[in-house]
Amino acid sequence: MSRFWSPLTASLDPYVPGEQPKDKRYIKLNTNENPYPPSPLAIEAIRAAAGDDLRLYPDPTCDDLRETLAAEYGLPKNRVFVGNGSDEVLAFAFPAFFSPADTILFPDITYSFYPVYASLYGLTYRTVPTDEGFRIDPDHYRAPNGGVVLPNPNAPTTLPLPLEGIKRILDANADRVVIVDEAYIDFGAESAVPLVSEYPNLLVVQTLSKSRSLAGLRVGMAFGQPELIDGLERIKNSFNSYTLDRPALAGAIAAIKDKAYFEETRRKVVSTRDRTSEGLKEIGFEVLDSKANFLFIAHRSVPAQRLFAELKDRGILVRYFNKPRIDNYLRVSIGTDEEMDAFLTAVKDIVT
Amino acid sequence: MSRFWSPLTASLDPYVPGEQPKDKRYIKLNTNENPYPPSPLAIEAIRAAAGDDLRLYPDPTCDDLRETLAAEYGLPKNRVFVGNGSDEVLAFAFPAFFSPADTILFPDITYSFYPVYASLYGLTYRTVPTDEGFRIDPDHYRAPNGGVVLPNPNAPTTLPLPLEGIKRILDANADRVVIVDEAYIDFGAESAVPLVSEYPNLLVVQTLSKSRSLAGLRVGMAFGQPELIDGLERIKNSFNSYTLDRPALAGAIAAIKDKAYFEETRRKVVSTRDRTSEGLKEIGFEVLDSKANFLFIAHRSVPAQRLFAELKDRGILVRYFNKPRIDNYLRVSIGTDEEMDAFLTAVKDIVT
Repeated sequence: MSRFWSPLTASLDPYVPGEQPKDKRYIKLNTNENPYPPSPLAIEAIRAAAGDDLRLYPDPTCDDLRETLAAEYGLPKNRVFVGNGSDEVLAFAFPAFFSPADTILFPDITYSFYPVYASLYGLTYRTVPTDEGFRIDPDHYRAPNGGVVLPNPNAPTTLPLPLEGIKRILDANADRVVIVDEAYIDFGAESAVPLVSEYPNLLVVQTLSKSRSLAGLRVGMAFGQPELIDGLERIKNSFNSYTLDRPALAGAIAAIKDKAYFEETRRKVVSTRDRTSEGLKEIGFEVLDSKANFLFIAHRSVPAQRLFAELKDRGILVRYFNKPRIDNYLRVSIGTDEEMDAFLTAVKDIVT
Repeated sequence: MSRFWSPLTASLDPYVPGEQPKDKRYIKLNTNENPYPPSPLAIEAIRAAAGDDLRLYPDPTCDDLRETLAAEYGLPKNRVFVGNGSDEVLAFAFPAFFSPADTILFPDITYSFYPVYASLYGLTYRTVPTDEGFRIDPDHYRAPNGGVVLPNPNAPTTLPLPLEGIKRILDANADRVVIVDEAYIDFGAESAVPLVSEYPNLLVVQTLSKSRSLAGLRVGMAFGQPELIDGLERIKNSFNSYTLDRPALAGAIAAIKDKAYFEETRRKVVSTRDRTSEGLKEIGFEVLDSKANFLFIAHRSVPAQRLFAELKDRGILVRYFNKPRIDNYLRVSIGTDEEMDAFLTAVKDIVT
């Protein structure tokens, strides 16, 4: 606390990202990073962008990147917004479309940054309980509200909501913006991007951090009708005109264009995920049916907190959330086959 | 306007950055970029950072960069904050230290992003008139207020406020945060960074965009006592945990360490500025006594708006603000000697 802080600053309970340990080399399964490096073409493009032009501001409208995304996703450029990671895109979307006068809705078990954004912008929210299997019931989003935000697949539960469910939420909230946060969409769930032309109230948010292996480059995007994109631009241009630097713009364009590499790496992650999931079930784990690049697991007899600590002792970092309903679960990012074998061996050793 | 926008979004009048023309090659003297490329060591460091590690999130605490800045500026690391350009640092500082309950103060002629930040965060402000020569009178900042922000040297006026004046403002506002925005400090004005240990209410904001030739990399920083740095961290971690990507962190560290290159390029800019200033005075321009990397000029007979248009026709871009008191002035960034010779030739041709 400080007498110089605004009341807002004093009231905040900021987001806590997963550990980025510096003390020793861990098998790092705690921040849902991709175990494979980014496309070699992206690396090459970043190197090429590292030159004398860095003295010049980047393009504040990010036209080339937005055009590349538009072509890739089959949309006009004016339906694409880009930002410094999907976290920044969400941080712009909350004040752009949600108002302190109304209550927004999101699931009780979900991305823990949503309540933080709400506090930052003075928004009230109500969490909507997922069922006993952590599933989202679209009909629970019919209550009067000032907007809806939910990840698909949900995090940390890994569970997808079929497009039919997304449509039910969109139909029930025709006058409110529904943000579908698709950070993990490329690992098996169905994207709502094709619904953008049909639903003026839909904003789909994605990122290059996961399926494009570019967490270190900070690029996220949103798809929606021009009115929503304009709303995001108004907030962005009242905050920082240039949130994407030149190397990030160049690397993102090259990564999007390298479809073959993208398909290959996401297939590998999905296959390792499904194999790891089977291995865990064999040794007494409940494993939710993941469509993400991570698993959400609980053991029938060994508490999650103990598993977390013992795995850390063995040099394996996973994520544990000490929160109601999920305090006996671990979130485990999918690494390489070798990393997941090491994880399975360690976990087997701990639980048996 | 859209029915999906929040009342906030509808109310905003976003910042408009200087043109980044794509139609043809201009002599670009309109966004205060440095005419010299960044340090070769910075370029090399960015290339080295473009590798497989991009799959991993950057360090959210930016420890290495903050340590480098701390060593360079002679402060402990906990007095240093870094962000995505000084615009983002300011965008965090406004809500961190200013409250809607009080009125903040800034000069009537100043960086045009300040009123935009105020609108974004629902802050009220009062502008304090500069004198007829656009000078800031520190005694005008004694009125009750909720905080003060001012650039030093001021933009677009180029005029510095001596440290004695900054101290008077700090002393008069011991219970309020005073933000000194030193985007252009390295071109000749006196930095307030040495006052940080003495004044718990002082936040100094700087950037690598100008004197380090890295506008395209988006790195800004703030110096202040730990309470203020913590306040900034709280807002940042409620917005986006990772605003600096890996290439930006690496490039910034290398740029800060290359002091020789920094000294050489800023000396060249200062020398070209002073020579250009003399040349302009000879052909009937009023030129404010600049301590920045740009000039603020008015001609005794040719209106600024006409000069702006005719220069643009000749392939030279400068900045014109159609605003009260300064609508007969042009802001002209300092380019290379060759660029400024071309500018002087063109302007001489127009006014004679």
